Amino acid sequence: MSEKSVTACLIIIGNEILSGRTKDKNLAYLATFLNEECGVQLRETRVIPDIEKTIIDSVNECREKFDYVFTTGGIGPTHDDITAGSIAKAFGVTWELHPEAHELLKEYYGPRGVNSEQARMAHTPKGAELVANPISKAPGFRMENVYVLAGIPVVMQAMLESLKHQIVGGKPVRTRAVTLNMPESHIAGALRDLQDLYEGIDIGSYPFYNKGRGGAAVVLRSTDEALLDKVAQEVFETAIELGGEPEFGDTS
Amino acid sequence: MSEKSVTACLIIIGNEILSGRTKDKNLAYLATFLNEECGVQLRETRVIPDIEKTIIDSVNECREKFDYVFTTGGIGPTHDDITAGSIAKAFGVTWELHPEAHELLKEYYGPRGVNSEQARMAHTPKGAELVANPISKAPGFRMENVYVLAGIPVVMQAMLESLKHQIVGGKPVRTRAVTLNMPESHIAGALRDLQDLYEGIDIGSYPFYNKGRGGAAVVLRSTDEALLDKVAQEVFETAIELGGEPEFGDTS
Repeated sequence: MSEKSVTACLIIIGNEILSGRTKDKNLAYLATFLNEECGVQLRETRVIPDIEKTIIDSVNECREKFDYVFTTGGIGPTHDDITAGSIAKAFGVTWELHPEAHELLKEYYGPRGVNSEQARMAHTPKGAELVANPISKAPGFRMENVYVLAGIPVVMQAMLESLKHQIVGGKPVRTRAVTLNMPESHIAGALRDLQDLYEGIDIGSYPFYNKGRGGAAVVLRSTDEALLDKVAQEVFETAIELGGEPEFGDTS
Repeated sequence: MSEKSVTACLIIIGNEILSGRTKDKNLAYLATFLNEECGVQLRETRVIPDIEKTIIDSVNECREKFDYVFTTGGIGPTHDDITAGSIAKAFGVTWELHPEAHELLKEYYGPRGVNSEQARMAHTPKGAELVANPISKAPGFRMENVYVLAGIPVVMQAMLESLKHQIVGGKPVRTRAVTLNMPESHIAGALRDLQDLYEGIDIGSYPFYNKGRGGAAVVLRSTDEALLDKVAQEVFETAIELGGEPEFGDTS
């Protein structure tokens, strides 16, 4: 991998993910979107509970370490939605009514008005810039390099779409894969030699069990497409020599 | 939640999860297993890349913070399987051949013998205790409160099963759920009052979109089943008053 990668960290906030009740769908989507649309590489993800101190500490640690931080979850109207207030504390600013967000909610709720719990969704850390929510209006927000998004996948995805031009990375990482019909340990020595030879490529080997037989997907990742094609061909030919019946593509 | 909870952290090690290629299936399984079988609560999860320094730092931070740490991934035979060596460095011990693990592999591979890459799977940090792998033999291991498991879900699950009597927690957390046919913001005030009244229960509200209508699942979590039943009944009755057409159970 290039040293110049633009990096991101995702912080998934929610007891429901940690309890096993809800299976996260945002990590894989965000990782793919950031790479393909923005050339940004997801380098770490944390799943943390709805506990203020944990949110503050995690956000403050990660915003120093990574170019971009995204959080998902905890920005709804209920008592357990404490993300926005915690982020305000992380940045040492007040959590206050954001007039523009308030207008959006007043328009959304119409003549019924905005009750005090709904109004929580119009509060942001002082100085936050809103992130549009085309689905259900209650916005996310940005504080410096921290983007605070909804946890519901369809809303998170719409927010990301509205952000993509302001998230600036480098070249997207591309992949090539060769699937082998033999245990990865048979080709492990050759893969190590290839990794030593080609530093610009990240070579991963991912074993699988398929219909009772062991196999492996060898996945090559790099921003250099010509190099990827060359090394994928070498993996393929090596696998033929070793009797691995390779196929191009990730068919694991 | 009780102050006396026994806590765990999961560290998922692998570029393939962070790239979005592979969707993690271990978090939800581990969370449920630890709670149901051991009375241990998963309190944080990190997904980190196959980078030695990141593994060392994450393991050392988390083994101080949590009663148990589990890692998944990176213990196979290929060059990118660097978990065991990194854990040795985290504990400041050598990474060396574990005679018992070597015997297991020799038996598994039979007359073909164990090649040098396969032998990597018989190396552990000095002093490690093996964790049985009934599926493909190459063992996991334990160093103090850190359990190092395979990434492949079927193998990880079998390893957990073999460990369950040595992971000792408290009472399992039980849940009750009430599903509402209205936006969570309508009941948000009442839920806040209930949460303030019943500190022994963790009340979560999880919005969903179903056939174009917004709804919410109110999920109550506690080790106290009688209290759960009482508060679930109160949520149910409150929801009826508010016109939320509640149902017991998590039907979101």
